[in-house]
Amino acid sequence: MTVRAAVAGASGYAGGELLRLLLNHPGVEIGALTGHSSAGQRLGALQPHLAPLAAREVLPTSTAALAGHDVVFLALPHGQSAAVARELGEETLIVDCGADFRLADPAAWETFYGSPHAGTWPYGLPELPGARTALAGTRRIAVPGCYPTAVLLALFPLYAAGLAGPEAVVVAASGTSGAGKAARTDLLGSEVMGSMRPYGVGGTHRHTPEMSQHLAAAAGAPVAVSFTPTLAPMSRGILATCSAAARPGVDADDVRAAYDKALADEPFVRLLPEGQWPATGAVHGSNTAQVQVALDPATRRVVAISAIDNLVKGTAGGAVQSMNIALGLPEAQGLSTIGVAP
Amino acid sequence: MTVRAAVAGASGYAGGELLRLLLNHPGVEIGALTGHSSAGQRLGALQPHLAPLAAREVLPTSTAALAGHDVVFLALPHGQSAAVARELGEETLIVDCGADFRLADPAAWETFYGSPHAGTWPYGLPELPGARTALAGTRRIAVPGCYPTAVLLALFPLYAAGLAGPEAVVVAASGTSGAGKAARTDLLGSEVMGSMRPYGVGGTHRHTPEMSQHLAAAAGAPVAVSFTPTLAPMSRGILATCSAAARPGVDADDVRAAYDKALADEPFVRLLPEGQWPATGAVHGSNTAQVQVALDPATRRVVAISAIDNLVKGTAGGAVQSMNIALGLPEAQGLSTIGVAP
Amino acid sequence: MTVRAAVAGASGYAGGELLRLLLNHPGVEIGALTGHSSAGQRLGALQPHLAPLAAREVLPTSTAALAGHDVVFLALPHGQSAAVARELGEETLIVDCGADFRLADPAAWETFYGSPHAGTWPYGLPELPGARTALAGTRRIAVPGCYPTAVLLALFPLYAAGLAGPEAVVVAASGTSGAGKAARTDLLGSEVMGSMRPYGVGGTHRHTPEMSQHLAAAAGAPVAVSFTPTLAPMSRGILATCSAAARPGVDADDVRAAYDKALADEPFVRLLPEGQWPATGAVHGSNTAQVQVALDPATRRVVAISAIDNLVKGTAGGAVQSMNIALGLPEAQGLSTIGVAP
Amino acid sequence: MTVRAAVAGASGYAGGELLRLLLNHPGVEIGALTGHSSAGQRLGALQPHLAPLAAREVLPTSTAALAGHDVVFLALPHGQSAAVARELGEETLIVDCGADFRLADPAAWETFYGSPHAGTWPYGLPELPGARTALAGTRRIAVPGCYPTAVLLALFPLYAAGLAGPEAVVVAASGTSGAGKAARTDLLGSEVMGSMRPYGVGGTHRHTPEMSQHLAAAAGAPVAVSFTPTLAPMSRGILATCSAAARPGVDADDVRAAYDKALADEPFVRLLPEGQWPATGAVHGSNTAQVQVALDPATRRVVAISAIDNLVKGTAGGAVQSMNIALGLPEAQGLSTIGVAP
Repeated sequence: MTVRAAVAGASGYAGGELLRLLLNHPGVEIGALTGHSSAGQRLGALQPHLAPLAAREVLPTSTAALAGHDVVFLALPHGQSAAVARELGEETLIVDCGADFRLADPAAWETFYGSPHAGTWPYGLPELPGARTALAGTRRIAVPGCYPTAVLLALFPLYAAGLAGPEAVVVAASGTSGAGKAARTDLLGSEVMGSMRPYGVGGTHRHTPEMSQHLAAAAGAPVAVSFTPTLAPMSRGILATCSAAARPGVDADDVRAAYDKALADEPFVRLLPEGQWPATGAVHGSNTAQVQVALDPATRRVVAISAIDNLVKGTAGGAVQSMNIALGLPEAQGLSTIGVAP
Repeated sequence: MTVRAAVAGASGYAGGELLRLLLNHPGVEIGALTGHSSAGQRLGALQPHLAPLAAREVLPTSTAALAGHDVVFLALPHGQSAAVARELGEETLIVDCGADFRLADPAAWETFYGSPHAGTWPYGLPELPGARTALAGTRRIAVPGCYPTAVLLALFPLYAAGLAGPEAVVVAASGTSGAGKAARTDLLGSEVMGSMRPYGVGGTHRHTPEMSQHLAAAAGAPVAVSFTPTLAPMSRGILATCSAAARPGVDADDVRAAYDKALADEPFVRLLPEGQWPATGAVHGSNTAQVQVALDPATRRVVAISAIDNLVKGTAGGAVQSMNIALGLPEAQGLSTIGVAP
Repeated sequence: MTVRAAVAGASGYAGGELLRLLLNHPGVEIGALTGHSSAGQRLGALQPHLAPLAAREVLPTSTAALAGHDVVFLALPHGQSAAVARELGEETLIVDCGADFRLADPAAWETFYGSPHAGTWPYGLPELPGARTALAGTRRIAVPGCYPTAVLLALFPLYAAGLAGPEAVVVAASGTSGAGKAARTDLLGSEVMGSMRPYGVGGTHRHTPEMSQHLAAAAGAPVAVSFTPTLAPMSRGILATCSAAARPGVDADDVRAAYDKALADEPFVRLLPEGQWPATGAVHGSNTAQVQVALDPATRRVVAISAIDNLVKGTAGGAVQSMNIALGLPEAQGLSTIGVAP
Repeated sequence: MTVRAAVAGASGYAGGELLRLLLNHPGVEIGALTGHSSAGQRLGALQPHLAPLAAREVLPTSTAALAGHDVVFLALPHGQSAAVARELGEETLIVDCGADFRLADPAAWETFYGSPHAGTWPYGLPELPGARTALAGTRRIAVPGCYPTAVLLALFPLYAAGLAGPEAVVVAASGTSGAGKAARTDLLGSEVMGSMRPYGVGGTHRHTPEMSQHLAAAAGAPVAVSFTPTLAPMSRGILATCSAAARPGVDADDVRAAYDKALADEPFVRLLPEGQWPATGAVHGSNTAQVQVALDPATRRVVAISAIDNLVKGTAGGAVQSMNIALGLPEAQGLSTIGVAP
């Protein structure tokens, strides 16, 4: 069986990465490619790395263009997914790379996004407890944000095992593709090369409530997240440095055992051998998340660090992995655990 | 049928890239991995991006370790291939990523390498006239240098069509992985980031005679190459800017027609639409060479530019492509035309 | 005596670099800062590295704002300088970082810029034969383009000594700041990091006639330039690789002697010791041009390579150096020969 | 009066930066340059950006070579400073860029460095309470580590005002020059470009006790620091993201007021306007530390972020600033607040 898939937002970075992965997916045929300002252009001029699709024309994003596909990937600005989903009908699998259906709490949505809450769809992070069950057979998937993917994979084993206190501190560095492909002066190569800078400091980044929501679900209790994102001089990758106070009596073996248990069978999370730490370069282009953890004896904080490719495991790879589960395909189909390094 | 392949030099950049590609090759089973100073270590500590091979141990390079494979890839320092080949016997396909068997002219070899000439093996650039015939069924392959790959793909159509004068000027920029993985102060990140510098200026780079040899073969007459390599602040990629005087009467249509004819059916060379120029970022991780050409009306020089990934089409991908031909496998098997961008 | 200087275009890269240098110039007081879309903002938000000027407001560019200064630096889009100069009057020293007054040949101007020729001002490359005489006391200076600065410093000694044939081939790599600060998708960090690409291929770049004009002046005969610019993944720097056929009988000593003679007393050009090659990283932030030259015995081509910081010697530093000469100040005042490395 | 200064370790990154700054210092004459493996070479081959010193020879590091100077800067491996200081005598100002004399607690020294404690010298971070008094007239200076410089400038105002709880969490990203100039495979450009990775996780980095010591001094009570350093793909710069729990009742105005009070008069620390955040690119090459702070209302954590150039304010600039104080020179002499950007 071949699944026919459309990609809305094909000229952006998320859309391009979806196409890169779908081209390698033996069970998927690529249907309509749609865009907004890029409509009417050949994909070869917009995504010159996708040689096999170079002659394809980008269509204007519309229900008509997206109809008639088994799967529709949405890589659209916030707020547009609900209308598209409604019009496409319940039989179409909609995989939304935007934020619209990630948050369960309408108040959190309204605080961080300033618009009415659209609802909540099954969350496309299969590694979380219960996630695969929710994804199996669904026709609606909310793909996680790139930062929450990195942070949750680093921290959920700790909270699921009840080993940490109710506050996590996260500082994450992201490559610039996470900021998208729209022309902005502060994202020019001249500005970002040779420089690191934070943004969204003080709890204002929209990915913060998404992290809290799922850590709380793992812990069975509220978890506050102090989150500071930073922009790093690289095109891809997220390195998330996360820490939380170890509960009294917890020792390093307890921590290691919790991570072993939570991650041992995961095809796309690699708990590294002790002493080896994640590097974003090692997961460039792959759907792997590298994870490592340590307990600092002096401060009694558990430090958990993950590295992902923000466009693969953090977006398009997570989307395809979740699609596979929803459609009953092998979960790893079309996805690679092998990075392109150096 | 599955081919069993060994890689000598598995801890270096060429070896790592060979393994990355072979892991994706449906017709190959990876056998022994050998190294020199890395022998005894787990591959996971040396090549952390190759997750599926993380537990593999690197063996000392020896005939015993390499024996019993259908294919042996050699990523060794110059001068070691002949002895290994002799001991492995004539039935083993040996794919040499080193320089030992690239040059036909013993004098050129001795001038540039300072040691006795080992011989000449079929040259692993299938796109050159006659190359596929020479590679089919062979048990010895000399993989081209990374710079010659880029330069020959840019210029052989011009010379094969007899459109250019006998002197080519080439300036090429390479990512740092081309310089290898040995620790050197001048290759430290601090030194190479934010900086470009030439090396091997004035005709001294060892890849120069390799370019001349094959351009001359295409032209049926001697071709002198003025070659200047430069080191660019990126880990992968070669951008080769090549030019030569157009012969009298040659016009832009003649040039375009020659490239169309030479490259139209090539699976791994993409002559871009007119007006679009190659970028190394677009071929990152892929076996594609992007090529474009223009005739400067003021100087009457043809400017031909190519972009490749030095580790893929420039080394490991070219090696696998040639292996496929030698073994009668589909030429494109295990190789991707899709880049990992941005 | 203190000179009062205004900078039009203060929010761009050339304007910011002019201000950086003028802040270090003991003979200059910084007056009005003007801009277009940035007017009304504090400079601290636009150029956060220029701490001493953080509180300054950017004024709209107008004759009124620029009047009353001894020196006015123009970092404006092409075509605007003539009107500004006319209105400011003949007593004001106008240092134009744009192209309007660089070319002597109206036909070349119209071919490359498509507008009427505005005229020709003394050319701000003091190292060229006769340039200092033309600059002394002038009230109008045309600052060279960044590429011509690098190329002319590499090649004029060769042509002034009559050692090379009438055609030069130049391939130059530039950092992205040379493309300016306007938001463009193709200049995003995600696009430029890890990638090299050419542009303006085939003799179409506007700096081409500027190179030819001044090489011809040095040679006393026409010189054709085949010029290919490339964009490199770094924010600053130009590495220009230039070559030309040596005239019959010319040997390496002749070449070396010509460069020694032409460059020995230059405060801002450093002919490197034989065997050491330029690197853009070594001149980052400095007004130095590093130059080296070799004669390739096989092709009989002279290869001359220069490295500059495109924003310093290639723009703002050349402008200040020329201003010093025009005003009778010490030529090196306010300028550094020391790079910021690594 | 001109001070005569020697630099031991002149071929490394700290040594090179000391020389760059001293060349710009009007009150300093550069005397002996010494090194270990580089002894006997010309500095021009080792530090090609320092054009004015190109012809200088590097001498072997010895008491004889260093004697007879007013100031001796030591950029040596740990453990060598005490012997040099003893031999040079009490009249020579010794500015030690190494760690030997930074820690007050012998037990902390022995835990982190594994050798006997050499003693404690006045700490060269003039912005700390009481530091200028301790530095005035001293003949021994312990230059802070680069990370502690960034972290202490971000956090001491908070602790000095008693606004935060006793545990700080710090995640800092450093450019690769912080790791030095010795050839190491993991620092090759190919490895670091496009990648971020942590190291020294779990409280094992040697700069940790240095941070705790001085935060505790500011607070008048113990402060535990959870410190995770990461390596970023840039040659220079440290971005330190620091946070601590706000004490009950503390509000954003209290925090702002504390930073205003502590930093308002500092020549080399720039508390940015509210809403503007530090970037390492803005302080490249300058002695400025940019600082910004916010109170996250949801988690009640104060997030304080600083950006410095690790080689300037983090090493050589801090050393020169402290030397100026020790010698009674103007504190800012020879130091710039202006970055080289972009």
